[in-house]
Amino acid sequence: MTVHLVGAGPGDPQLLTLRAARLLERAQVVVHDRLVSREILQLVGPLARVIDVGKTPGLSHSQSRINELLVSLAREHEVVVRLKGGDPFVFGRGGEECEALHAAGVAVQVVPGITSALAGPLLAGVPVTHRGLSHGVTIVTGTTVHGAGIDFRALANADITLVVLMGVRRRAILAAELQEAGLSPETAVAVIERASPPQQRTVRCRLGDLADAKVTSPAVIMIGAVASLELNGERDTAIAMGA
Amino acid sequence: MTVHLVGAGPGDPQLLTLRAARLLERAQVVVHDRLVSREILQLVGPLARVIDVGKTPGLSHSQSRINELLVSLAREHEVVVRLKGGDPFVFGRGGEECEALHAAGVAVQVVPGITSALAGPLLAGVPVTHRGLSHGVTIVTGTTVHGAGIDFRALANADITLVVLMGVRRRAILAAELQEAGLSPETAVAVIERASPPQQRTVRCRLGDLADAKVTSPAVIMIGAVASLELNGERDTAIAMGA
Repeated sequence: MTVHLVGAGPGDPQLLTLRAARLLERAQVVVHDRLVSREILQLVGPLARVIDVGKTPGLSHSQSRINELLVSLAREHEVVVRLKGGDPFVFGRGGEECEALHAAGVAVQVVPGITSALAGPLLAGVPVTHRGLSHGVTIVTGTTVHGAGIDFRALANADITLVVLMGVRRRAILAAELQEAGLSPETAVAVIERASPPQQRTVRCRLGDLADAKVTSPAVIMIGAVASLELNGERDTAIAMGA
Repeated sequence: MTVHLVGAGPGDPQLLTLRAARLLERAQVVVHDRLVSREILQLVGPLARVIDVGKTPGLSHSQSRINELLVSLAREHEVVVRLKGGDPFVFGRGGEECEALHAAGVAVQVVPGITSALAGPLLAGVPVTHRGLSHGVTIVTGTTVHGAGIDFRALANADITLVVLMGVRRRAILAAELQEAGLSPETAVAVIERASPPQQRTVRCRLGDLADAKVTSPAVIMIGAVASLELNGERDTAIAMGA
């Protein structure tokens, strides 16, 4: 009767919220997308049905079919969890799913998660804000829902850290437009691939070299003076110590 | 021997991460600031020492004394938790504490938390990004560490949601500078006081009316077309159902 739209965080199950973990235990159905890790899905109760809409033929790439599926599942089950990587309201199209469910008369509860836009930098030892270096952060995607590119020139600001999700493919344009708008080619850049240890890898470079940096998706690109910091000394052991 | 710099999230204990909850149970000492809720501190083990550096005379307003305290506690105890509201690396000066601890040879692990800059809007039913309305989000504070104001004009962007923490006192300047830089006075604004139900309250207005809005700190101010949405229908019951 209720769809819980739940943020799964950046990938490490220890970074789920208590509420998300409890809902996964209680759910009769869990509908998740591609970015949710296998370790997190292991927290789902043994009797629950798990549907991967990132891979199920006919469902991937079709938001309207996902919306229909959620509506029909909500009519059959008491606790439906729609699990999304990161935070449901920071990209991820959670707002659209809410609107579709409301329009069909289905109750929705939204549970925030830790977005990889902020956890990725943190786990790489980079604070997105830091006294004297950055007094804010802007988060955008490199590619919009319709595949169009956004104009990065309006985002060039030496006092604000820029975090770009899904930007690997367009990184040459990103770097060129930011420099065109006045950012120095010397500006520090950190590219964090797969924002959760142990798979996480950080590549650091200058903005002037970003176009040629050898990096692969999924990755978080961060640009700004803070990207030269590395403060989370023991990040590689964090998971081993967890649980 | 290790200081765990842990994000406490927006206030609701159910929005702690599994890792944060476990560290609170295991800690011998917990050093927290003013923004951490009583409900969260109840998760600390019964034998642990709890130090409130937001209120302890001589410690409040003195980052260097907090740093010294953490260093000396780390030398006496195996598990020290430094608990900060929201996320330690999104404002909150976590980076400075890391640097001080590293300089003293103390190991640090950083555990991300959910920042109220994103959870506040979500719990009020507002997605910070939404197809056709916003393709990104900028997070800043209204007042810097030194009490100086930042120039909001560079942040006026009709396509990007603006979230301002600690901005209530300077909201007249915020509204004036954004309009001066081209944002319409009709731009939607939502002010979310105390970002966790049941205390949470949302005040909505136009940018042109923000200066006169009756709002009190602590609050998250969000500005942009998404601020007119309200998608989390049952937010007021979310906590009652939790746990």
